[in-house]
Amino acid sequence: MPSSRPHTAIVAAEGHLVDSQILTSIFDRVIERGGDFEVQHFELGRTNDDFSRLTLKVSTDDEASLARLVEDLIPFGCHAVGEEDALVRTVDRDGCAPEDFYSSTNQRTQVRVGGHWRDVDKQRMDAAIVIEGDRAVCRKLRELRVGDRVVCGLDGLRVVPEFRDRERSDFSFMSNEVSSERRVEVSVARVARTMRAIKARGGRIVFVAGPVVIHTGGVAYFAEIVRRGYVHVLLAGNALAAHDAELALFGTSLGVDLEAGTPVPGGHRHHMRAINAVNRAGSLRAAVETGVLKSGIMVECVRAGVEFHLAGSIRDDGPIADTIRDIVEAQDRYSAALAGADMVIVLSTMLHGIGVGNMLPAWVPVVCVDINPAVVTKLADRGSSQTIGLVTDVGLFLHQLATHLSD
Amino acid sequence: MPSSRPHTAIVAAEGHLVDSQILTSIFDRVIERGGDFEVQHFELGRTNDDFSRLTLKVSTDDEASLARLVEDLIPFGCHAVGEEDALVRTVDRDGCAPEDFYSSTNQRTQVRVGGHWRDVDKQRMDAAIVIEGDRAVCRKLRELRVGDRVVCGLDGLRVVPEFRDRERSDFSFMSNEVSSERRVEVSVARVARTMRAIKARGGRIVFVAGPVVIHTGGVAYFAEIVRRGYVHVLLAGNALAAHDAELALFGTSLGVDLEAGTPVPGGHRHHMRAINAVNRAGSLRAAVETGVLKSGIMVECVRAGVEFHLAGSIRDDGPIADTIRDIVEAQDRYSAALAGADMVIVLSTMLHGIGVGNMLPAWVPVVCVDINPAVVTKLADRGSSQTIGLVTDVGLFLHQLATHLSD
Amino acid sequence: MPSSRPHTAIVAAEGHLVDSQILTSIFDRVIERGGDFEVQHFELGRTNDDFSRLTLKVSTDDEASLARLVEDLIPFGCHAVGEEDALVRTVDRDGCAPEDFYSSTNQRTQVRVGGHWRDVDKQRMDAAIVIEGDRAVCRKLRELRVGDRVVCGLDGLRVVPEFRDRERSDFSFMSNEVSSERRVEVSVARVARTMRAIKARGGRIVFVAGPVVIHTGGVAYFAEIVRRGYVHVLLAGNALAAHDAELALFGTSLGVDLEAGTPVPGGHRHHMRAINAVNRAGSLRAAVETGVLKSGIMVECVRAGVEFHLAGSIRDDGPIADTIRDIVEAQDRYSAALAGADMVIVLSTMLHGIGVGNMLPAWVPVVCVDINPAVVTKLADRGSSQTIGLVTDVGLFLHQLATHLSD
Amino acid sequence: MPSSRPHTAIVAAEGHLVDSQILTSIFDRVIERGGDFEVQHFELGRTNDDFSRLTLKVSTDDEASLARLVEDLIPFGCHAVGEEDALVRTVDRDGCAPEDFYSSTNQRTQVRVGGHWRDVDKQRMDAAIVIEGDRAVCRKLRELRVGDRVVCGLDGLRVVPEFRDRERSDFSFMSNEVSSERRVEVSVARVARTMRAIKARGGRIVFVAGPVVIHTGGVAYFAEIVRRGYVHVLLAGNALAAHDAELALFGTSLGVDLEAGTPVPGGHRHHMRAINAVNRAGSLRAAVETGVLKSGIMVECVRAGVEFHLAGSIRDDGPIADTIRDIVEAQDRYSAALAGADMVIVLSTMLHGIGVGNMLPAWVPVVCVDINPAVVTKLADRGSSQTIGLVTDVGLFLHQLATHLSD
Repeated sequence: MPSSRPHTAIVAAEGHLVDSQILTSIFDRVIERGGDFEVQHFELGRTNDDFSRLTLKVSTDDEASLARLVEDLIPFGCHAVGEEDALVRTVDRDGCAPEDFYSSTNQRTQVRVGGHWRDVDKQRMDAAIVIEGDRAVCRKLRELRVGDRVVCGLDGLRVVPEFRDRERSDFSFMSNEVSSERRVEVSVARVARTMRAIKARGGRIVFVAGPVVIHTGGVAYFAEIVRRGYVHVLLAGNALAAHDAELALFGTSLGVDLEAGTPVPGGHRHHMRAINAVNRAGSLRAAVETGVLKSGIMVECVRAGVEFHLAGSIRDDGPIADTIRDIVEAQDRYSAALAGADMVIVLSTMLHGIGVGNMLPAWVPVVCVDINPAVVTKLADRGSSQTIGLVTDVGLFLHQLATHLSD
Repeated sequence: MPSSRPHTAIVAAEGHLVDSQILTSIFDRVIERGGDFEVQHFELGRTNDDFSRLTLKVSTDDEASLARLVEDLIPFGCHAVGEEDALVRTVDRDGCAPEDFYSSTNQRTQVRVGGHWRDVDKQRMDAAIVIEGDRAVCRKLRELRVGDRVVCGLDGLRVVPEFRDRERSDFSFMSNEVSSERRVEVSVARVARTMRAIKARGGRIVFVAGPVVIHTGGVAYFAEIVRRGYVHVLLAGNALAAHDAELALFGTSLGVDLEAGTPVPGGHRHHMRAINAVNRAGSLRAAVETGVLKSGIMVECVRAGVEFHLAGSIRDDGPIADTIRDIVEAQDRYSAALAGADMVIVLSTMLHGIGVGNMLPAWVPVVCVDINPAVVTKLADRGSSQTIGLVTDVGLFLHQLATHLSD
Repeated sequence: MPSSRPHTAIVAAEGHLVDSQILTSIFDRVIERGGDFEVQHFELGRTNDDFSRLTLKVSTDDEASLARLVEDLIPFGCHAVGEEDALVRTVDRDGCAPEDFYSSTNQRTQVRVGGHWRDVDKQRMDAAIVIEGDRAVCRKLRELRVGDRVVCGLDGLRVVPEFRDRERSDFSFMSNEVSSERRVEVSVARVARTMRAIKARGGRIVFVAGPVVIHTGGVAYFAEIVRRGYVHVLLAGNALAAHDAELALFGTSLGVDLEAGTPVPGGHRHHMRAINAVNRAGSLRAAVETGVLKSGIMVECVRAGVEFHLAGSIRDDGPIADTIRDIVEAQDRYSAALAGADMVIVLSTMLHGIGVGNMLPAWVPVVCVDINPAVVTKLADRGSSQTIGLVTDVGLFLHQLATHLSD
Repeated sequence: MPSSRPHTAIVAAEGHLVDSQILTSIFDRVIERGGDFEVQHFELGRTNDDFSRLTLKVSTDDEASLARLVEDLIPFGCHAVGEEDALVRTVDRDGCAPEDFYSSTNQRTQVRVGGHWRDVDKQRMDAAIVIEGDRAVCRKLRELRVGDRVVCGLDGLRVVPEFRDRERSDFSFMSNEVSSERRVEVSVARVARTMRAIKARGGRIVFVAGPVVIHTGGVAYFAEIVRRGYVHVLLAGNALAAHDAELALFGTSLGVDLEAGTPVPGGHRHHMRAINAVNRAGSLRAAVETGVLKSGIMVECVRAGVEFHLAGSIRDDGPIADTIRDIVEAQDRYSAALAGADMVIVLSTMLHGIGVGNMLPAWVPVVCVDINPAVVTKLADRGSSQTIGLVTDVGLFLHQLATHLSD
């Protein structure tokens, strides 16, 4: 039964609509939001390489819900058939957007300005889109300044969803299910192959790591991976550096002797003494250069010239002098370090992992490793087929990864 | 303030009362149950090797609660100071005990009969103690027969709790905390050393394994451990054998190709075809002997003469012909196979792990390996310092263990 | 680029192919299995009510992989365009199928025999399909007898996948994501509404329950739900009945006083004494009738005439006389009790929940309640949009559910 | 066998040494650290009210390990028998302590200065102890300034461990085990009773809350608890305020309609629009006063004059103007707000919960509520018998708690 609801709009979309479940999602949204649809034209790509094309009439009971519905179809690549320029309003208060600002997703986006479609730069989720001359760029709300020209409403916007590439590399079909009941060895081999390929072409690999890397015995393996040149950026918190220094100075992590596996006398004080020792030296770099720190992840990073940023948090002890205390500055430095990343590997840190996930465009592949399936599910849930999750022991994972990268 | 409650009893205990937290537990029980205590005599062992000795007066408001309180102190080694024989009643109905039967713990127990203390044989939890001539033995309720003489009430009973041995082997200090934030490599090395020592002295190692061993890629490593003679008994369910046969016949586990890490066409049918193939052969042994099965855990066990028992469950597919359908028979066969075990290693199976835990005396060391900390906590909670839990990836654990045992 | 692989087949499918992601899944399977496809005809349903229709040419490099590929498309409703009868072979050994038997899914299935399509009866997963005269019926491998006529290969088979109904009842859109970060109250209200509707039309609600129902304080609420007539069948294990009797006789569950929340003296023996008391009476019904048991879930079930079956397992204490010791018999009784179920509610039991899930056709709605998200994910993963999972506290869930059903 | 190791020291301790497992811990430490002990005098408290008294000779192989051993016994209340003043050194660099500074625990501590024992003020873990005139006070490393006089080494230090009070309030016996298999209703009733008692005597209750409070439907209940005067301080992050504002403005949390339980059109943008709306108003207080925010947790807190602090983190969206961007400032404000707290309730936030746990002395009771047992275990692990953990659904917990507090 064709729709008889009074308010209608025509939208169009093209691409791998079926494979990537975009067509399904479009229909779902219409019905979930209480609308009706009528397919005016649909052409299914004949083979796996061909695009499909859709023209769809959607209808709702009132104008407001129609506008919200059309807005909701944008992330799936739907755009108005009759093209208009985007609505642009001027910022009237620093750090704030106009009320109807368009809040971005992490998908590739285009804006129509002056009759031309422009690719949006620095794509990320939850940002405003600012027009600067010919250019469109994502900017966080807090970065907006009076006079900035911000895209509002829904016209003149086009999202290009990541299509799943069925004839893909190793990477893309590794996992679509988070489970601890999987053979991890196969996945490690694939991650290693992808890392080799990225390194070979001069790409950039970012690690995001929590202190569990140290507690589970991963230091020697991570250090090896750094030395072999597979770590271009390290993003972490104060705790990683503190326990890394504790291990270097006292042989313990959280007071546990990592060789013997047992607590040692006075061990609960070691991490504070390690922090104090680094801070007496002045910084991690100074501690390395003056010989206070002789081994560990941070030593390898300093020696290899790996860019690192430590973001502070409310639970920090110390913190170590290098820790960025202002979280806005920390976000900015993380964000700059992630620009141009070809792969991100998150090791046992929900806090920093989510922080990084918020900053990344959808097309950067992310590997999340954690022994807790709930963490992996949460981190992997970026609306992107480029994220894979491995539920496994991080120490043993790094052992295997280092072995694969050493051959 | 000494107690003024009217109903009192004197109990005594001796042993490593402080180290093993027995003294604390005794005091806790008295207060939790609403009683008072007065220490009449306490002699603390002067050094780590000396026993401590306690004489304690406990008092409550009524006779019934005094009896329950004294009962509750028995597992901590408390016994009446004036010794009496145990009360013995005769069974009047097959499979049932007298109402006030003494239900055993898994701790070493002695019963006083005819003025002599007898060690209880086949110690396990939740059993009745039957007197047969000079002998006392644990027996499940369902095994009782009319005329059996069963220990009732609380007199004439003495429990000898496992004392924690501070100067002991590698094994005992491995872990008292279940956590995924630990270095597993150290623990694996210790488990391997303990296994070598047991094998060297002709001891008996029992594995209890779930199908996750197969899904996580552990087959080749487990097979290696069998071939090297470290598996004397294998206790499992139908699923282990079914997925082991699936892997041998089709290269998949739950339909996933274990080399490629991806699902294969028709894979969801493989486990049923594997079960059918084994059942057409008649049994696992027959499938091995006729060449239907050429590789895998069950093949190695058959070839090496390892005793195995597969216990059925409500979720079984098939089941494979060898699966024991009657759970009482399965318990009896598990129980017989566990007699004389020097070590039990439970790999990713809460169902069979708890079943085995119920049957074991407290002094048999148990290692529980699972990626889910809740399972490890539940399995490790046997009131015994002899149980250690490892929260890690089972496939990677077996890889490491096989490597350690191969050197 | 149209396919040039030499071995081709034409398949057709119709239904809500896009909404239910069936079209995507078909394309995925072809590519994953290394084939090519070419859409010969596709007609997209114009509105939400219209069916879509597909004719697809698939091709592979060899005949064997083409056969496996076509087999793999059957669960998505694909069938050969030129229709043939199913291949039927005769069983030559009791309890075993021919090697190439068709192993069923839990989706609605039709078989072509003598030129006519027959609906398959007693649909369930992992069964063989037996032809008896005009009838086709699912039968477990162990039930096959020499001379039975079993469907083999892939011809003459048609699966009718459950289409997601967008204009659905409350039930179907409740949840497609398992998360503990959800408001449970809304879901409870919907489950209650669905239960009321089923009861009003004389339908059948089956509960599957683990002992956590008792430990978390759910007994009074569950009893209320039984008394109001919302429980038609109860499927459980020995532990539910044992701890239910323990609570009735001693006020404890696992030795913990449920009013005070603290352990009581001798409490660890209570469950064994409760089992002994029931077994002395002879059975649960006898214990109710003789007044041994005066309250609890089992008492309510006996009084209300609720059908119940207790399936045994390797970890059972006792077991209580009513426990079915033979797991094959237990499966048969569960399976018979589930026939005609309109809704199944699984409360905190992975073991019995998976057992039940294996027996159900895909179209019976199932609600899984557990505080552990991994259990909910595993139970909910039946390839059916009819299953919803709630990650919450079972005791508090039952409190809310009883309140909703009492209004 | 009395010890023959050459280096010996005599330590003494008194208190409820047995009940609180302090004696056991002392012996354990000596043996674990490779020492020997000899009990020179032990007097066991005759009743539950009496203190026990211990004099212990410990010995090791060398002077350094003896020093570390004695240090390790301090947290258990052991102190040198021959009393000396604490060693005090002067800070030579801002933000850094002397290398051998004494790093505090969260237990009540005394320092001997000028022949007198002084109670340490602002007790918390991982701090330095600074002597200011007659006073001793805990200070974070970063707060140290050149010239500060810091306690170093181990002499002149005495820790007074929290003794478990067996005869104490409801609170103390609530839980010593973290498990989801418990009846939560009993615990909620006890928490409510404790809260009523604290409020009645003019005490101070601090809540620490994550956004899961909102996602699980807890807002109305939490608001009720605020209105009834049971919340004196609220410590949280940006996400709590952002989703609270989202709910107030759009009826959604994370884009999900909390009444219907389903996602709404454009819902993924709601939290950013809510943040923008608050920031346009200037602050949460301004948003309340100008009527931008009309309901929710933050509105109730503003109206009731509840002190609140929002600590920033790397994963913040926005953040809302009130969010403290500098984590050192956030720690200082949290810490000041916690001074004099009589009870702390942590609702579903590991990040802020651990942050708060680091700041609290051991004697402040803490209740941790989370559906994930691993989080509860981690938060509850403060070496204090004053912490209880509840593994349950936070939304349903708040419903129950509000009901108990409303009677």
